[in-house]
Amino acid sequence: MNVDGQAFRTIYLADDCWRVVIIDQIQLPHHFELMHLATLEDAAVAISSMQVRGAPLIGATAAYGMALAMKADSSDLMLQHAYQALLSTRPTAVNLLWALDEMMAVLQPLPEAQRELAAYAQAAIICDQDVAICSSIGDHGHAIICDIWKEKQSASDVVNILTHCNAGWLATVDWGTALSPIYKAHDAGIPVHVWVDETRPRNQGFNLTAWELAKHGVPHTIIVDNVGGHLMQQGQVDLCIVGTDRTTRTGDVCNKIGTYLKALAADDNDIPFYVALPSPTIDWTMSDGVKDIPIEERDAKEVTHVSGLTDDGRVQTVRVAGEHSPAVNYGFDVTPARLVTGLITERGVCAATEVGLAALFPDKVSQACANG
Amino acid sequence: MNVDGQAFRTIYLADDCWRVVIIDQIQLPHHFELMHLATLEDAAVAISSMQVRGAPLIGATAAYGMALAMKADSSDLMLQHAYQALLSTRPTAVNLLWALDEMMAVLQPLPEAQRELAAYAQAAIICDQDVAICSSIGDHGHAIICDIWKEKQSASDVVNILTHCNAGWLATVDWGTALSPIYKAHDAGIPVHVWVDETRPRNQGFNLTAWELAKHGVPHTIIVDNVGGHLMQQGQVDLCIVGTDRTTRTGDVCNKIGTYLKALAADDNDIPFYVALPSPTIDWTMSDGVKDIPIEERDAKEVTHVSGLTDDGRVQTVRVAGEHSPAVNYGFDVTPARLVTGLITERGVCAATEVGLAALFPDKVSQACANG
Repeated sequence: MNVDGQAFRTIYLADDCWRVVIIDQIQLPHHFELMHLATLEDAAVAISSMQVRGAPLIGATAAYGMALAMKADSSDLMLQHAYQALLSTRPTAVNLLWALDEMMAVLQPLPEAQRELAAYAQAAIICDQDVAICSSIGDHGHAIICDIWKEKQSASDVVNILTHCNAGWLATVDWGTALSPIYKAHDAGIPVHVWVDETRPRNQGFNLTAWELAKHGVPHTIIVDNVGGHLMQQGQVDLCIVGTDRTTRTGDVCNKIGTYLKALAADDNDIPFYVALPSPTIDWTMSDGVKDIPIEERDAKEVTHVSGLTDDGRVQTVRVAGEHSPAVNYGFDVTPARLVTGLITERGVCAATEVGLAALFPDKVSQACANG
Repeated sequence: MNVDGQAFRTIYLADDCWRVVIIDQIQLPHHFELMHLATLEDAAVAISSMQVRGAPLIGATAAYGMALAMKADSSDLMLQHAYQALLSTRPTAVNLLWALDEMMAVLQPLPEAQRELAAYAQAAIICDQDVAICSSIGDHGHAIICDIWKEKQSASDVVNILTHCNAGWLATVDWGTALSPIYKAHDAGIPVHVWVDETRPRNQGFNLTAWELAKHGVPHTIIVDNVGGHLMQQGQVDLCIVGTDRTTRTGDVCNKIGTYLKALAADDNDIPFYVALPSPTIDWTMSDGVKDIPIEERDAKEVTHVSGLTDDGRVQTVRVAGEHSPAVNYGFDVTPARLVTGLITERGVCAATEVGLAALFPDKVSQACANG
């Protein structure tokens, strides 16, 4: 999407046609800085230090990490080393494993001399595939926004959309998942306005979602996570769209902590609550999300400390909690399918049910059955 | 309650028997500092700068502000001036008006020479009345906690209680409202553990609730506002207790922004959700809270900026939001009575209904009818 009028992807080849450019997302929203990855190690650090984050972007970065490794040394030994080094950066990221396996399947059979070119080509394919998936999610979600807009009294009436965390282009290669329909609607001239949840403790809403919406020119307002319910009660939200890290085959949605609370408020106020997802995040083996999805417990320091900009332009971390109070930090929660109006996938929109998902993805269901 | 083993009130007479001691609550949780108020201006600044906050404590501070004014000058002119000066510090605080009217009713008829002594006496009465009300709320709420504890399999099983914002002794003269039952239960030997919501944007949960629980020795854990729903889904919350700024005669509860979301989660998981309140906060004229209670919109800077302690011990404010995103800051939301299990008042516990409240407060109902 655009940054001050110039189109960007989150990851792309530099003009020298071998180094890889990323946005250093740790610096956002205060500084927009591009970084050049020149080695396998650069790529691994970018992932582990969360300069890149979001499942699709992690996968894409790992793919280019393999390409950088092959440029330096295309031996079998390096192939194995690069695979393991990249896999260990974020061991729980499903997309990471998937992207690395794709790369291995292409590279391993090839003679060493062909591996560098093939790796760059395959990394580009992985990126383009992600862009195509996200663009399709956007098209299907755009239709939902368009329908809500048409029900408004006047064409100038704004469609108010609430989102939580960051499921925008910064989490993918381009377009994003939850934000893709919003970009499509905005670009098509529908007057949209986005309520952006802060998303404590890591503040991805303020740091990333608000930044990318601002840079692309999409009207939005930032709010603390406590506000959404009140806005919905007062008729100021027409629609919620969020992303998901993992979705059960029955439509339960595991997303950033706090998503469940917004889904409850949407349900209580008869507001549509949609979840946007690329189908690879569907876990076809799982049927009860609340019971079965393990929830990551993260460092308590994310809760007790906050980073921001001082008046003189330095990024400073401060402790916001008293020193004698223990903290816990759950990263995700599960929104039961009964609270989800629909799932927006690259193949279309379906009900958040086993039947709904199976109808869109009969091939994936039979594949999962065959594996199980 | 206790601060490191020593019993404190939030406001009391100094050893010199004329100055008034308060806790500078702006410094919490990082520094515990007592302040001496010696003039009407000191009292007015303490209220307007939020060194004291919480409706009952604001009322008590205003009462002592009148006493300090009478010590300096007990003329009719000063009486009027002090009343107006204190009233203008927080114009929307109902308790402030009530306390000032109480003081005026006592002082105005008296000859000037008697006003100083009478003012100090009446301020002490207002404080003691608040302590008695909060203690009664605590006793009635303690019975609820005790019942939940008795249903546990073992007497060593902990009762987990979630609270939002600060409705503790720091908001009153002593005991608090929502926290009073918790202190009573803890002091009686019931094993309680409190989940403390951060309460963005002003962080009263981390700054005040966690601090006072820690100082009194009550086990607790701090969490960001997004976490409560997940905890409830996972059976880690037995009970919610929150305070309220205003309650309709039908039991709708206006409390700190985000309360509604927790009430929805409690309802979805069949967890009791209680609201503790002194009866003066009931608005007998109002029946539809969501429709009729005006919600204060506060400075957006509370959303975009956060204060905390640096590594070298300085309190520093940092900007956590990008500079190009507008923010809105609603201070409160309304939890509909249907989501409230019961109201804990100084006269006992009742259903959050017109019938429930009228049965406990028949005198207030008839008074409101007479006024209406």
